[in-house]
Amino acid sequence: MKNAAIIGGTGYGAIELIRLLHSHKHIQLKKIISNSQHGEQISSIYPHLTSFIEEPMEKLEIKSLEKEVDIVFFATPAGISKKLIPQLEQSSLQCIDLSGDLRITSQDQYLEWYGAEAAPQETIDNAVYGLPEIYKEEIKNAKIISNPGCFPTSSLLGLIPAIQHKVIENSPIIIDGKTGISGAGRTPSAMTHFSEVNDNVKAYKVGKHQHIPEIDQYLSGIANESVTSTFTPHLIPMTRGLICTMYGQLKMTISTEEIIDLYKSFYQSEPFVRIRNKGEFPATKDMNGSNYCDIGLHVDERTNQLIIISAIDNLVKGAAGQAIQNVNLMNGWDEEHGLNNVPVYP
Amino acid sequence: MKNAAIIGGTGYGAIELIRLLHSHKHIQLKKIISNSQHGEQISSIYPHLTSFIEEPMEKLEIKSLEKEVDIVFFATPAGISKKLIPQLEQSSLQCIDLSGDLRITSQDQYLEWYGAEAAPQETIDNAVYGLPEIYKEEIKNAKIISNPGCFPTSSLLGLIPAIQHKVIENSPIIIDGKTGISGAGRTPSAMTHFSEVNDNVKAYKVGKHQHIPEIDQYLSGIANESVTSTFTPHLIPMTRGLICTMYGQLKMTISTEEIIDLYKSFYQSEPFVRIRNKGEFPATKDMNGSNYCDIGLHVDERTNQLIIISAIDNLVKGAAGQAIQNVNLMNGWDEEHGLNNVPVYP
Amino acid sequence: MKNAAIIGGTGYGAIELIRLLHSHKHIQLKKIISNSQHGEQISSIYPHLTSFIEEPMEKLEIKSLEKEVDIVFFATPAGISKKLIPQLEQSSLQCIDLSGDLRITSQDQYLEWYGAEAAPQETIDNAVYGLPEIYKEEIKNAKIISNPGCFPTSSLLGLIPAIQHKVIENSPIIIDGKTGISGAGRTPSAMTHFSEVNDNVKAYKVGKHQHIPEIDQYLSGIANESVTSTFTPHLIPMTRGLICTMYGQLKMTISTEEIIDLYKSFYQSEPFVRIRNKGEFPATKDMNGSNYCDIGLHVDERTNQLIIISAIDNLVKGAAGQAIQNVNLMNGWDEEHGLNNVPVYP
Amino acid sequence: MKNAAIIGGTGYGAIELIRLLHSHKHIQLKKIISNSQHGEQISSIYPHLTSFIEEPMEKLEIKSLEKEVDIVFFATPAGISKKLIPQLEQSSLQCIDLSGDLRITSQDQYLEWYGAEAAPQETIDNAVYGLPEIYKEEIKNAKIISNPGCFPTSSLLGLIPAIQHKVIENSPIIIDGKTGISGAGRTPSAMTHFSEVNDNVKAYKVGKHQHIPEIDQYLSGIANESVTSTFTPHLIPMTRGLICTMYGQLKMTISTEEIIDLYKSFYQSEPFVRIRNKGEFPATKDMNGSNYCDIGLHVDERTNQLIIISAIDNLVKGAAGQAIQNVNLMNGWDEEHGLNNVPVYP
Repeated sequence: MKNAAIIGGTGYGAIELIRLLHSHKHIQLKKIISNSQHGEQISSIYPHLTSFIEEPMEKLEIKSLEKEVDIVFFATPAGISKKLIPQLEQSSLQCIDLSGDLRITSQDQYLEWYGAEAAPQETIDNAVYGLPEIYKEEIKNAKIISNPGCFPTSSLLGLIPAIQHKVIENSPIIIDGKTGISGAGRTPSAMTHFSEVNDNVKAYKVGKHQHIPEIDQYLSGIANESVTSTFTPHLIPMTRGLICTMYGQLKMTISTEEIIDLYKSFYQSEPFVRIRNKGEFPATKDMNGSNYCDIGLHVDERTNQLIIISAIDNLVKGAAGQAIQNVNLMNGWDEEHGLNNVPVYP
Repeated sequence: MKNAAIIGGTGYGAIELIRLLHSHKHIQLKKIISNSQHGEQISSIYPHLTSFIEEPMEKLEIKSLEKEVDIVFFATPAGISKKLIPQLEQSSLQCIDLSGDLRITSQDQYLEWYGAEAAPQETIDNAVYGLPEIYKEEIKNAKIISNPGCFPTSSLLGLIPAIQHKVIENSPIIIDGKTGISGAGRTPSAMTHFSEVNDNVKAYKVGKHQHIPEIDQYLSGIANESVTSTFTPHLIPMTRGLICTMYGQLKMTISTEEIIDLYKSFYQSEPFVRIRNKGEFPATKDMNGSNYCDIGLHVDERTNQLIIISAIDNLVKGAAGQAIQNVNLMNGWDEEHGLNNVPVYP
Repeated sequence: MKNAAIIGGTGYGAIELIRLLHSHKHIQLKKIISNSQHGEQISSIYPHLTSFIEEPMEKLEIKSLEKEVDIVFFATPAGISKKLIPQLEQSSLQCIDLSGDLRITSQDQYLEWYGAEAAPQETIDNAVYGLPEIYKEEIKNAKIISNPGCFPTSSLLGLIPAIQHKVIENSPIIIDGKTGISGAGRTPSAMTHFSEVNDNVKAYKVGKHQHIPEIDQYLSGIANESVTSTFTPHLIPMTRGLICTMYGQLKMTISTEEIIDLYKSFYQSEPFVRIRNKGEFPATKDMNGSNYCDIGLHVDERTNQLIIISAIDNLVKGAAGQAIQNVNLMNGWDEEHGLNNVPVYP
Repeated sequence: MKNAAIIGGTGYGAIELIRLLHSHKHIQLKKIISNSQHGEQISSIYPHLTSFIEEPMEKLEIKSLEKEVDIVFFATPAGISKKLIPQLEQSSLQCIDLSGDLRITSQDQYLEWYGAEAAPQETIDNAVYGLPEIYKEEIKNAKIISNPGCFPTSSLLGLIPAIQHKVIENSPIIIDGKTGISGAGRTPSAMTHFSEVNDNVKAYKVGKHQHIPEIDQYLSGIANESVTSTFTPHLIPMTRGLICTMYGQLKMTISTEEIIDLYKSFYQSEPFVRIRNKGEFPATKDMNGSNYCDIGLHVDERTNQLIIISAIDNLVKGAAGQAIQNVNLMNGWDEEHGLNNVPVYP
């Protein structure tokens, strides 16, 4: 049994961690840390947690953290963990960073896309990218995890088999992303105001989303050469769920059946990736509340394009669930522990 | 470990039972029975179940059922269980009827409100109404459970403390119900067609809903005199969730604080009822995917009315979750077993 | 042809006025006034107005207003018009106040429910309550209109025939209100954050909503004695639309057919009230984008209650459409002018 | 003043025609024809039309049609107009076919994509494709209009300027389409069942949608060589609205500003196409209830892709509004007549 703390206790990422940790047998959630609302009970903000958590949220006391817990989840907005994790690197704590602070290996790129100074290069280098289906061995030995972004999780799981097996060209790669509004977090804004987004679809951050360098960095690593993808995210009038529809130029003649076989074989040991059969494509709700990533595939023979459709729950496989999957691996527990619930449908 | 079968395998009630039973340690789901789609895999209809259930659905073989399972859930539309349960009454099977077939004790009333012949009177009399917060002892000894309707669950839990303690008059009692569309089931119709119900609210079955006699029957039992309530259900553009706003004429001078204390004390041993503090009222999403019923209370001193707001997830506490809560009690298991998950929020 | 200005140009009320005035032949919209965003083009905030309005928004110059326009719409939050209208009372301007500032005739009541000082008593007394179906003659002669609130519009139109004809008791009167989120305006908040309100229903301001004294004031006027109603508003996950389900104790034996006839006769000259036939009840979408108020009626013989269901588009009949209906009457134009469009369905 | 009939009176296309024709000064809607529900009042199916249309729907009497009306709108499902229009070709009637029956010029292609026999080649050849921004002169002289599909309208208006000016390669062209559920019509099915599509996104008819050959046919005509596009439609949980995000490989060095200028100049005389400024992209709601097509453009310099985002209301510019725009042109009326309303927002 290990003890855990969540820093950034009032965002949706933290709330989802609380939900999932409640049924995790090896982790006890010891502390919910919120500098803005410490002293308050979390159920006063989130009444659905009534009867689950009685202790008030706490202020961060970084020096005593190591004595009290073993695992720290950073469910913080960009810019926080890059300051805190360097202070904890010498400790024995396992740090899981759900923010984007440690995902971009080049400090210059981070500055360019995030518009702020990067974390120390050493901290960045010590962090392992927590996409278990691809970097499982590294994760098992990691102490700091940089938990992937929601769009990168969906698109990398969808693209990597095709890139690695050189089924598609490295360029152009089109990623058309669609996400539920919870991906924008809990801070009210015009962009998340119900009357503005309900019954509405809109592209946003066209050509500028900070998940672009993250996707390209890992695709390039797999391809062993520079890959640049075109990524356009869209806001969808739903709370949870994220789907990427991806288009790649085929390098070879391959049938839909063959590409499905290739993906099934690529992910055959992975409990959270489900490859759909021919003619079947995932809907975001099929993963609702669960850690699955479902992938559908189609070879468009008319245009020689491979269409890859990859869907997740942005708050689970795209955030809190993947964080727990990483912790399970880091601690030698069953990778599926606490995560094998049936999706909530409808 | 007991074995269970679900009859009526492709409706939303069955799907929710499958989800909840997956994390139930004492029950193994042995059979999903669907006469219309036997032979098919349920994941071909519900892809979210991919990797969870491999066996095809089966045809009902009522004679051999007793040999294969211990518990039978009837997640069937009205009119089925009233024919099947009488054939199983002599068996050792525990039968949980999620339909309305056994809820109305008077055969004449059933005929009037359901427009069809009732079940045999003996079967009706043998069935226990599965509202555990009120009828716990009877449930523990029951073999046939008539699982309450979704609106009756919400409204009875909200009204019974006030009726029993004679805080409000028995008439008029106004119940204004609002339900998500999943309550209408999975059969497509104009009433559940997305473009017709999205961004729309509509009252339906005004004065004619078959939950009216169910509510009145149990309120009358508690009051020891005939209670007739006015109930108007509304369709709300959401998938899950049900909320009843109820209005009763106060018989005494009582403050909001005092009525809250009375309810907290009434439900103090009940794990699934959460009484809100003064000025706080439940939202349906606070229960999403969970078995809780949250109740908020307000004394309107200007008009001498008690306002009671009671919310549930219609598919969990209003159907499958309550069914499992009943099974837990019937078998001497922890009442909360398999049901103590955190609501899925947001 | 008259010229008009809108003060408070960036809220949803203003936007709806702009839409409706665009097809009004007798009014030219001369100025959109916004103190917070003057100088900006309104299409930079509301791109749907691109190609419709080129002139930038202006700062309020109250002294020159009379020279430039004939009609002023106050689409301002509470607290603004009560200061501005007294400065314009001596002018020839027609003032239509869409806010609640002039609706409560008692200054003490305004203070109690709005938590702020009321407008000068003289200004309040000069304002006519702009519910045309009830106060048409007064409106024709008015210079200052206090445009009704959205809930009061729906509930007064639903209740007044029954109260006036003494069909129901004056107490208890239950009004269960349900509104789309646009009623909460355009300022982002937790209460209007998509992920919080989507797929969710919640009661709010229970026993405290500022529309309560407005409803009671006009019901009391009709009844010629004090009427206090119990009103509970609910937030519904839809953008537009508002529906009140109302319950009153019958004072006489009357059939559903007879009450429908009474309502049809009461509103027979009113172009914007449509009484539904027996067994039919309005859905909010039936009025979408239009100025209609549809009313359905049911006598619940079991409980001796009259159920009245009254639905409007909260931004049209509940705000901007009714404002224009009032202006039409004040100027001797056809009451329906600019408002007889077919609802946008689905 | 001309008289019109709508055939296929109970679908959403017909309903939208009724709404728009109500404010059209030159057309009187004389007949609503529905073979399945003739004799019924349309307001019994669509209560929002109460007080607008009193006459019952009629049965089709094709022989007498010419005597009674001048214009016939076919708002029928695929397979009807191909049989009816050949019978009317010798008459003086103007026929506007909102179905796909006459859109594909090759009978073989129609058979392949629609799975049924095509219309007579002569009828196909006589029909003019009703995309007024591109084929205005042909439309002015047409007697039979094949009204474009919703996805082709959005994608052709977005792609044609770039294809015609040879800004992008003819291959690959990626069209990622997202549509509201009303595009699937009014017949209930699992695909349009609220609980299945709410809070959900799903791709459908991947590689098989019948709008693919329509898009390619007209792109090829513009390019003067064969163009094959990759098109993937998605169902979005909203009622109205359609948006295509399109990706094309740049053939030249061009900036976002320059491509915007090119589009503005291409569409400078077109009242219904609005090109957004740099960094601004349309949301579907910006066109709600109106005939506009808004287009946003971005040059992704990293990947040398042109991103084109084109949005419409699928029931207006994607169906009924465009039909009326065509009729206006055919009759020499102002192209904008009856269509210049402000979008309904929010």
